[in-house]
This record gives sequence, structure tokens and C-alpha cells, in this order.
Amino acid sequence: LNPIYAGLPTTIFEVMSGLARTHEAVNLGQGFPDDPGPEDVRRKAAEAVVDGWNQYPPMMGLPELRRAAAAHYRHWQGLELDPEAEIMVTSGATEALAGALFSLIEPGDEVVLFQPLYDAYLPLVQRAGGIPRLVRLEPPSWAMTPEKLDQVFSERTKLVLFNNPQNPTGVVYDRAQMQLLADYCVRFNAYAVCDEVWEHVVFDGLTFEPLMALPGMRERTVKISSAGKIFGMTGWKVGLVFAAPPLMKVLSKAHQFLTFTTPPNLQAAVAYGLGKPDDYFTTMRAGLQRSRDRLAAGLKRLGFEVLPSRGTYFLSIDLAAHANAFDDEAFCLDLVKTRKVAAIPVSAFYAEDAVKSVVRFCFAKHDATIDRALAHLADLT
Amino acid sequence: LNPIYAGLPTTIFEVMSGLARTHEAVNLGQGFPDDPGPEDVRRKAAEAVVDGWNQYPPMMGLPELRRAAAAHYRHWQGLELDPEAEIMVTSGATEALAGALFSLIEPGDEVVLFQPLYDAYLPLVQRAGGIPRLVRLEPPSWAMTPEKLDQVFSERTKLVLFNNPQNPTGVVYDRAQMQLLADYCVRFNAYAVCDEVWEHVVFDGLTFEPLMALPGMRERTVKISSAGKIFGMTGWKVGLVFAAPPLMKVLSKAHQFLTFTTPPNLQAAVAYGLGKPDDYFTTMRAGLQRSRDRLAAGLKRLGFEVLPSRGTYFLSIDLAAHANAFDDEAFCLDLVKTRKVAAIPVSAFYAEDAVKSVVRFCFAKHDATIDRALAHLADLT
Ligand SMILES: CSCCC(=O)C(=O)O
Ligand SMILES: CSCCC(=O)C(=O)O
Repeated sequence: LNPIYAGLPTTIFEVMSGLARTHEAVNLGQGFPDDPGPEDVRRKAAEAVVDGWNQYPPMMGLPELRRAAAAHYRHWQGLELDPEAEIMVTSGATEALAGALFSLIEPGDEVVLFQPLYDAYLPLVQRAGGIPRLVRLEPPSWAMTPEKLDQVFSERTKLVLFNNPQNPTGVVYDRAQMQLLADYCVRFNAYAVCDEVWEHVVFDGLTFEPLMALPGMRERTVKISSAGKIFGMTGWKVGLVFAAPPLMKVLSKAHQFLTFTTPPNLQAAVAYGLGKPDDYFTTMRAGLQRSRDRLAAGLKRLGFEVLPSRGTYFLSIDLAAHANAFDDEAFCLDLVKTRKVAAIPVSAFYAEDAVKSVVRFCFAKHDATIDRALAHLADLT
Repeated sequence: LNPIYAGLPTTIFEVMSGLARTHEAVNLGQGFPDDPGPEDVRRKAAEAVVDGWNQYPPMMGLPELRRAAAAHYRHWQGLELDPEAEIMVTSGATEALAGALFSLIEPGDEVVLFQPLYDAYLPLVQRAGGIPRLVRLEPPSWAMTPEKLDQVFSERTKLVLFNNPQNPTGVVYDRAQMQLLADYCVRFNAYAVCDEVWEHVVFDGLTFEPLMALPGMRERTVKISSAGKIFGMTGWKVGLVFAAPPLMKVLSKAHQFLTFTTPPNLQAAVAYGLGKPDDYFTTMRAGLQRSRDRLAAGLKRLGFEVLPSRGTYFLSIDLAAHANAFDDEAFCLDLVKTRKVAAIPVSAFYAEDAVKSVVRFCFAKHDATIDRALAHLADLT
């Protein structure tokens, strides 16, 4: 059995969701919204599965979805993408990520990763034969610095895997931070694989900017998006990949042999959804921002140190301030059992040298859910 | 860029479907049925996407689908499978296959494969770091022999990848052939990864027997099935994986990082569909058998040598008998352009030393489609 997989524990998200069920806890762990998602988009999917084509769609995705994606990303992010040669549909962002790593990495290549990192990143890089070079980010700013990048970038760097907006921290990197990273990519002739699945979930009036839009990055960037995140239906597993034609050519080969295609009815519904008026997207952001503020205010009231969150479904607290702080994992296990609130210990996002004082909560929930969680946490600090 | 993927051409199925569109040909190439699939199953999917849960289902799949699969395979194939520990849902059989190869193979392991082979097999084995050991099968029987197996099995064999019923040949291996292969697996302590996606599509009263059911194979076999093939909706991409718990443990890790989950509405519909009465499945087989017979009779009438097909959507002709035979690829290119019928050259299923005289047709089509193709082929021999 392959040791990379054989040695892995079950993902923290499944573990915590399981504990939440067992202890009938409020689940603010795994990142999915309470809201069922836009009804018109779901109805489109229903119509398409009853009246539409249920056989293989083209391997690259439905032409109507690729055209809709080109229009959507031109409008929202100023990107000019050729729907024929630069856009591909995958069965979720995870498949897109796996395909990018398997097709870009040659065994022995170095890959720059940032901790905290999403659980799929490291095993995929390793299974692809890449040598991980880890940058350790720390609260409260989680900033990249030239000193940190100097330690990991070299002539051996094949690619950097970059997540922005960032899970679990809720950081949305600003132009200066992105320019710093882009400079290193250009200087060391590295590809950037950008997990930008949270691109629509940004707050405080921020405009999301894709790394691909920075000078020198267009030809070396693979941008990964997710309809599941855009529409808040995390089970849909419709991913989008954007890359210049020479890169797309090899990415498509990996896709061909990972899932080949993605259910056409969901693709048709996503094509429709991407054309929804701006209002839909801004209302969604505003609603999530309100939920963020509600949870943040409640946690502060209870005496927790709440770290800033500018995007994603997540905010974190830092236990370091508390005299009686135990580690984040022990804190979360205790929380789910005795307080009946599930959260995610951020140390689970580190492969080594973990920050052990930060706990992540998902706020993409109804007010009642948030209030119930807060009530359970009263008197904890 | 990874050379395994960078060097690959576009899949023959996409190429031929593209040519079929360009030349407005009858498409008997890529294997998908004309029939839109069972309406009740499609309606279940529609209901579930509108009224049901659209967030992450459990990583292993909906419990109701795993229970339905356990009941289905007990009834149809006599297998006893624990829905908790031995059944996993994937985003199609291709993902299941990729996951099995990435999680079972360690770089340097030898992997036994049979030519003709489905196009995903070889690149996946190579990308996983496996050393392919190819067995060359030949028409008309496509039989395995001890001599052939002796040449490839050794102490270095980690696994054999076995497709039964077999695409493209339409062979359904009999008990003696399967026992031969099982004996080699046991003798050399090899795993068997069984692509059995065509298990329901068998003809002439055959009973399909999974390799997993043979003595000594239960603990060493990964069985892969596909709802897309079971219900003739090839775009659905709902795969099923069956394996003993120690194997499933590592298979699930690969799945976790390839797609993580599969759309819950399609899973719910498949759970419903697997419980359909026997009649549904036997009627489906009888209909496809009639289509096979119609195409076979028509091709024979036109003077082609038609090879037997006992399962799958496919039958083949052997051009070797024809004095003016050119190779199968040239034949297919000429066919789609001048006769407006798309078929698949079986040489595309060989990595080396190809059989170049066999052409595959998909017969899972309406009578009118088959008749139109036959009319286009008149006077060809
Ligand atoms: C795939 S389960 C994890 C979901 C998620 O994005 C998160 O909770 O971080
Ligand atoms: C994934 S496209 C190929 C479909 C198929 O099974 C075939 O035509 O052999």
C-alpha cells in the first residue's frame, strides 16, 4: 500500500462532523452553509436532469458553461479567457487541484506551500512526487515576507500552491502581498496554482483580485474556482480551471484520467447561475458579512480574542491570550463534548511546527444557529 | 510539465465524437446509449436537488446508497459487503480507478495489464509510479493463457488491473479464465483491481460473476462499478468501490484527496435505482441484446466478419479477412468522412504491438440509428 496514503488519518472535517453528530453539537466545524442555496439554480439542475442530456458531456465541460465562465470572470475579475482553450470544468476544486499537481510536477520538483494549509495539499504534492517547501504563517497577520520566501524559493521550485482568500485564516491578501509572491514566481520561473475557491466570499467592500491578473503571471498561473463555493452548495462538486493554452493542454490530460467529465445537469445549472445579476452575489456577501459580524461580536462579548476575517466562511479565535489556554485540539475536543459546539483546531492545517492556539469557526449559518452556539459557549473564558 | 501527461494525445473517444459532429456522422464510436435513461431515477435526482441536501455528503458516500449497494450486490452477485466498511462512492469509475492505483502502487511496483486496454489505464499506472507489464490479447477469443501470464507475473507484481466484461472486445470471461487469473493473483500475492463497470450489460442469459467472489480473492480485490453504466446515463459519474476494510482504508484516503465527495442528489437517485425490480435490469439487457443482434446481423449481411460480443455496448468487426484491408485507424477515419459513420479503431487500445484489424461499434442505439449506420455502410466490403 502506498505509504503516503496509508499513513494518513481521517480528515479533521469528517472527524469533527462525526463528533458533532454523536454529541448533537452545533456544527461550526466543516465549512458548509445552513442556507440550501439558490432555488432557481437548483431548479435548473432539476430540469436538466429530467429533460436534458445525461450522457458524457465534452471532456472540457459544457460549451455553455465555459462561455458563461468567460463572461463571469471578465465581469467580476477583469480576466480575458478563451472559453475554448483556457477554461475547463472539473468534478470540484479538489479534482482540479489534484490534476494540476499530477500534471505539472515531475518527481523531485520542489513545491512551495504555506502553512496553515488545506488538508489535501500536502499528500497530493507528495503523491505527485514533489518535495514540499513549507512556509510557516503566523497570527494575527498571517503575512508572507521576503525572508520567509527567500528560505523556500530556488531554481528547483516548480510551483507554488497559493490559497487566497485563505482557509482557515480568513485572510484576503492585499496587492502588496500578492505582488511579493508574484515577484518570486517570475524570478524563479515558477508556476502558481491558485486555489481561489473563496473569491466571491469577501467582505468589507473588498474587490477580489486573482493572482493571474498580476504582471507576468498570466502564462504561469492555474486558477481554480468552485461553483460549490460560489453558490454555497458544497456538495455540487463543479470546479473550474483557468490557464493559458499550453498549460491547459497538460491539465486536461490529467482531468481526462481523473474523472473525465462532470454531471451535465449540474454544469448547465452552474452556467445559468454564473449569469445571475450582480445583486445576487453582493446580497450573498452582505448576508455572510452579517453572520461573520454576529459571531465575532458574540465571541468578543464572551471574552475571546477574535482574529480578523476578510473572506471565506471562517473566523478564528486565538487562545494564546488566555492564561488557562490548553492546545487548540484539546480545546476543540472538549468543546464538542461538553459545550456541544464543533469547531476546527487550526493546528490540523500544519504539517510541522504547528501554531497551536487558534480555533476556526464557520459562520455561514442562520442567526439562530450562531446564537445557539454562543449560548453554549457562555462562561467559557 | 509532467512528461506522462504532456506526451498524451486527446482520447480517441473525444477525437471520434468531434469528427462525428464535424461530418454529421452517425456516432457509433464513444460508448453511450441513445436512450435517455430511466425517467423515475432522473426524477429522484431532480427532487433531491430541489428539496434535499446540497452540502457535502459523507466522504464515503450517502449511507442510504451504501446500504442500497450492499443489498443490490448481495442479490445480483451473491456478495456480502459491509456498507460501513467495504463500500465507497466515487465521482465515477475513472476516479475509483485512479484512486485505487495511486493508493495501492508504490513507485517501482509492477502492474499487470491486458491489451486491448482502456485509455486511462496505462497513464494512471505510470503516473502512480508503476511499471506496466502488458499481456497482449488477440482476436477472436482474446483469451488469457498460462504462457501469457507466466511472462508477466512475478514476485514484483503488486497488482493486476482486470476489466470484465471487457471494453472494447465484448468478452465476458468464463469461470475457467477467471480462475486462471485468480490462481496467479494468489500465487504471487497480488491485488486485483477489477473494472467491472459493464457487469449488468451481459447477454445470452449469462450470469456475471465478480472476480472478488472467487476463492482467495475476497481480501485482495478492489471491485469498481459505475451507476452511469448500470443505468445507461454515462454523464452521471457516480462510481462504487468495494473492498475489504484494510484495503478500503487506504482507498478512502486517495478518494478524499481526488474529489472528496460526489453530488448527493445523484447519490440519492442511484440509491433508489439500485433497488429497482429485477425486471428493469433484465429488460435493459434484453433491449441491448436485440440491438447487438440487429447491428451484428446487418454487418454480416454487408459481408463483414463480426466478432462475438457477450457484454458491454460494443461489438467489433475484424478486417483481417478482407483482401483490401487497410489498417483500422485509416479505416475509421475514412468511414467517418466518406460514410458518415463513427467507430473506434481497436488499435487505440494498445500501447505497443497493436492488433490493427479490429474496429469497434457501439450498438446501444435506437433501431433507426443502427439502420441508418448500416445503410451508410452498404457496398463497403
Ligand atoms: C471537504 S470538507 C472541508 C470543507 C472546507 O472547506 C473546510 O471546512 O475547510
Ligand atoms: C470516457 S469516453 C469513453 C466511453 C467508453 O467507455 C468507451 O467508448 O469505451
